Amino acid sequence: MGMKVGLGMDVGLIGLGRMGRGMAASLVRAGHGVRVWNRSPGAADGLAGVTPVASAAEAFAGDAAITMLADDAALRGVIVEGGLLDGDRRPGLHLSMSTISVALAQDLAAIHARAGVPYIAAPVFGRPDVAEAGALNIVAAGDPEAIARAQPLLDAMGTRTWGFGPEPHRANAVKLAGNFMLIAAIEAMGEAAALAEGHGVTGADLLDLLTSTLFASPVYKNYGGLIAARRYEPPGFNLKLGAKDVGLVLSAAGAAGVPMPFASVLRDNLIEAIGHGDADKDLAALAEVARRRGRPA
Amino acid sequence: MGMKVGLGMDVGLIGLGRMGRGMAASLVRAGHGVRVWNRSPGAADGLAGVTPVASAAEAFAGDAAITMLADDAALRGVIVEGGLLDGDRRPGLHLSMSTISVALAQDLAAIHARAGVPYIAAPVFGRPDVAEAGALNIVAAGDPEAIARAQPLLDAMGTRTWGFGPEPHRANAVKLAGNFMLIAAIEAMGEAAALAEGHGVTGADLLDLLTSTLFASPVYKNYGGLIAARRYEPPGFNLKLGAKDVGLVLSAAGAAGVPMPFASVLRDNLIEAIGHGDADKDLAALAEVARRRGRPA
Amino acid sequence: MGMKVGLGMDVGLIGLGRMGRGMAASLVRAGHGVRVWNRSPGAADGLAGVTPVASAAEAFAGDAAITMLADDAALRGVIVEGGLLDGDRRPGLHLSMSTISVALAQDLAAIHARAGVPYIAAPVFGRPDVAEAGALNIVAAGDPEAIARAQPLLDAMGTRTWGFGPEPHRANAVKLAGNFMLIAAIEAMGEAAALAEGHGVTGADLLDLLTSTLFASPVYKNYGGLIAARRYEPPGFNLKLGAKDVGLVLSAAGAAGVPMPFASVLRDNLIEAIGHGDADKDLAALAEVARRRGRPA
Amino acid sequence: MGMKVGLGMDVGLIGLGRMGRGMAASLVRAGHGVRVWNRSPGAADGLAGVTPVASAAEAFAGDAAITMLADDAALRGVIVEGGLLDGDRRPGLHLSMSTISVALAQDLAAIHARAGVPYIAAPVFGRPDVAEAGALNIVAAGDPEAIARAQPLLDAMGTRTWGFGPEPHRANAVKLAGNFMLIAAIEAMGEAAALAEGHGVTGADLLDLLTSTLFASPVYKNYGGLIAARRYEPPGFNLKLGAKDVGLVLSAAGAAGVPMPFASVLRDNLIEAIGHGDADKDLAALAEVARRRGRPA
Repeated sequence: MGMKVGLGMDVGLIGLGRMGRGMAASLVRAGHGVRVWNRSPGAADGLAGVTPVASAAEAFAGDAAITMLADDAALRGVIVEGGLLDGDRRPGLHLSMSTISVALAQDLAAIHARAGVPYIAAPVFGRPDVAEAGALNIVAAGDPEAIARAQPLLDAMGTRTWGFGPEPHRANAVKLAGNFMLIAAIEAMGEAAALAEGHGVTGADLLDLLTSTLFASPVYKNYGGLIAARRYEPPGFNLKLGAKDVGLVLSAAGAAGVPMPFASVLRDNLIEAIGHGDADKDLAALAEVARRRGRPA
Repeated sequence: MGMKVGLGMDVGLIGLGRMGRGMAASLVRAGHGVRVWNRSPGAADGLAGVTPVASAAEAFAGDAAITMLADDAALRGVIVEGGLLDGDRRPGLHLSMSTISVALAQDLAAIHARAGVPYIAAPVFGRPDVAEAGALNIVAAGDPEAIARAQPLLDAMGTRTWGFGPEPHRANAVKLAGNFMLIAAIEAMGEAAALAEGHGVTGADLLDLLTSTLFASPVYKNYGGLIAARRYEPPGFNLKLGAKDVGLVLSAAGAAGVPMPFASVLRDNLIEAIGHGDADKDLAALAEVARRRGRPA
Repeated sequence: MGMKVGLGMDVGLIGLGRMGRGMAASLVRAGHGVRVWNRSPGAADGLAGVTPVASAAEAFAGDAAITMLADDAALRGVIVEGGLLDGDRRPGLHLSMSTISVALAQDLAAIHARAGVPYIAAPVFGRPDVAEAGALNIVAAGDPEAIARAQPLLDAMGTRTWGFGPEPHRANAVKLAGNFMLIAAIEAMGEAAALAEGHGVTGADLLDLLTSTLFASPVYKNYGGLIAARRYEPPGFNLKLGAKDVGLVLSAAGAAGVPMPFASVLRDNLIEAIGHGDADKDLAALAEVARRRGRPA
Repeated sequence: MGMKVGLGMDVGLIGLGRMGRGMAASLVRAGHGVRVWNRSPGAADGLAGVTPVASAAEAFAGDAAITMLADDAALRGVIVEGGLLDGDRRPGLHLSMSTISVALAQDLAAIHARAGVPYIAAPVFGRPDVAEAGALNIVAAGDPEAIARAQPLLDAMGTRTWGFGPEPHRANAVKLAGNFMLIAAIEAMGEAAALAEGHGVTGADLLDLLTSTLFASPVYKNYGGLIAARRYEPPGFNLKLGAKDVGLVLSAAGAAGVPMPFASVLRDNLIEAIGHGDADKDLAALAEVARRRGRPA
């Protein structure tokens, strides 16, 4: 992720949430010119080296436009309802990095094809600090030629780009499958901890053992640590967003005709967690559902 | 795990399945004297350095007796119905390493206490090759003095002993919680792969990405590789045994008053897998259930 | 449901599917004047006493307009996107009888309030033959004065009107709760039949006993008979529509913060049934999922 | 169920719980001679016309012995561990009416065959008041000749005997399938009520509508009324016994290779209900789980 000089690209970045800010920093560090736009003003404050622009249309231009928005509605609102594809100064390609539904990805691919703007789906795995370090895992799918052109940007933001072929929506299916596995891992730890506690073993001791051995991977260590400590605030990734993602998983599964009983359990348990006040806590708080159901507080 | 000389212990090992054989080899290599007994004769063939004995009672003697049997019925049959605790030459301690129910562990602890034989529950994580390498993770609970005496044996068989206090059954609860998490991980990979495949991504490509990144842990890499290749034979740990373990998990959960909806899904799906002929395949074949349900063969 | 004379109302009926046709016949028999419109032409063929009109706007007029459409999209398409509420000849009230989402019901109530057209939600329980006999159970919610005006129409179509207060969407929540219970009953019969068959008892013998005794109600007798006979064609109410309704149930439950694990199981099993080719069979074919999962075909 | 005179049979009845007492009264009323035995003394107090005997062996004699005990352990304890089949005065047949596991029914059939005592499984549907009225629905399976001899007894206790062939355990599978459907109906009503309440409709209003129309059957009216009133004490049939029955259902399903996802949900929810203090309330209290999960108390 070393500093590059000279041949930087002209990029517009739409969406300066915590992930988008980290990605912007990585792009700047790699020598790219980065125009930024965010719906709510002031989002670029403190972000060195970027050029805030006054409209989404000004960002949706140049060698490439990158979008990193919260959900389907936000992305659809900016791109489709905002009429960006009808503009004069459309970008050389659109790198769509938000976690969105497979259905919207399919719609956007068709709409961009009609507008003549190459559309690459490139959702990512990694938290904001990983984005800032330029160390994301990026799942990319779309026209190979466009991906090749976007590669310097992908390299600036990520450790590795995992290619999933020419159909953009497949990258979104992969992202959703990964998020599903992550949330399922939290649920499994929650149930395992409740079982252990029911027999006098602390969840912390159980998870220390398992996440040091069989399950010694980033997801288990990170979330296992939070569950062991029952430390759910401040949230890294909040539970409400996790519930949204499980909704996208179930929609994608329904469209593909795939029953996913684990995802259905996750849906019900996330609803319970939200109903009990944990919407804005870390997703790890899902683990509390098994504890609560096991015994009254 | 280097060779020890001189101060080896006198150990009797009951149960020479694949795990028991590996453990026997590790004990011999560490310099312990190992009498072995197995219900079906010939089980010790090719096992260097051990002393086969003609009865379980002859093995249940010496400094320590180790049991490594297939299930509750086998262990109860040998120890309780076999009347071993009424014998003259009872061992200095009983290291009970089988994966058994929490309920049986509680019964055995009480029975051993009455008989005056220290009872240590010490179930393990690791496959037969890990047992043979003396690299198991051992979960031990029981009287601390007895565990201290057993430590040379535990060190011979394992990389690390994880202590869970003086009540033996807690080690069994931990072992079951771990096996639950493992089987849940397989189910999650199976559902994720079916989802991806429903959108044109191969399960192999999906799992290669995820088990190299967020889920880069032994369990995910091992089982993920089998699922990706759809290679379920020969079995490392067969699906029928996995179903037995989920039964033990649900019993332990019921006894503790803990709902475990993921475990319930696993139970149903393992029943389906067995009904469709996969009982003797590797546990990884559980992943086929999601594929089969998604679309007809 | 006797013939009325003289004081019939002037009604427009939009939607002439099997239910809509039955309702139209009941209205005509009761002496009401019935203009009808359906998106696809020819839907009124063979329907005595009605007056086909050329546009939805011509039907959406008079003393009352009744809508009986297939789903949210159809109703939204006609009323909202079709701009009917902006017309000159708006009806005295809108009796909205389709099975739709709670969310759309809430939207429509708000939209009608702004347009000054009283909006009554009045979904029904009963199959087409029951609609034709004027013997539906009608669940009505909305402004009491408007419901009072609509009562002659409700009496023509139904045996009884069950009032659920002034907020229209509550009637839709009740309708969805009822459909959920109906589909859950089918699943329960399917699992029970599979259990019995696994022990050598035919599902037909089991269901004959239970639906003659503890479960001697219309839903169980009707669907139990179909399941017993494994007779799923022609469909009375097809499985695909049942899957749609479970989707609406889950959406309503999510909005209200209510986990519904039975509904989640129904969702997964309906997806499996559709994947195995049963979308256009009777909803009773859901019972085949348990049989299929139990043993390979 | 009129009074019979003259040709009454000589019957021994083991088990005087609420159901057993009701059955004894019906037998006496029909003119049979009824010796009774119960483990705890005094159980026959106030029961007119019966002859208390001092041991189970004295009851297990005569033309027929009837057992009506709480569970597998009680029945196995009396018959097998009590050695009744080795006695001199064995009965002409054993009418086994308890709700027990399919597995125990199979064991008992084999044991009785060896002992030369005809064994009829004859579990019943109906509450204690129905037993007292002689109006049970009896599910009978076993040797046809023995059932024919028992018919006067069955006629005294029940409105109708439903025959399920010569293999006794099939009657037990049918009884369990019926109890499963009953408990599933309660869960469905509980989820439906929670959904309705989430949208402002009382569960009472919802269930009044549905149990008067589509679901107008004894089970729904009875349990629907309790759920609507949230009246769970005193219990008719307590929740703990329902949990026991679901355990038997799942065991029977596992043995037959049948996944039963609804039964799995019931298991988890009954565990939650018990954990929250409802073990000794009426089974209808299962409906509170959905309410509790939906929103915090």
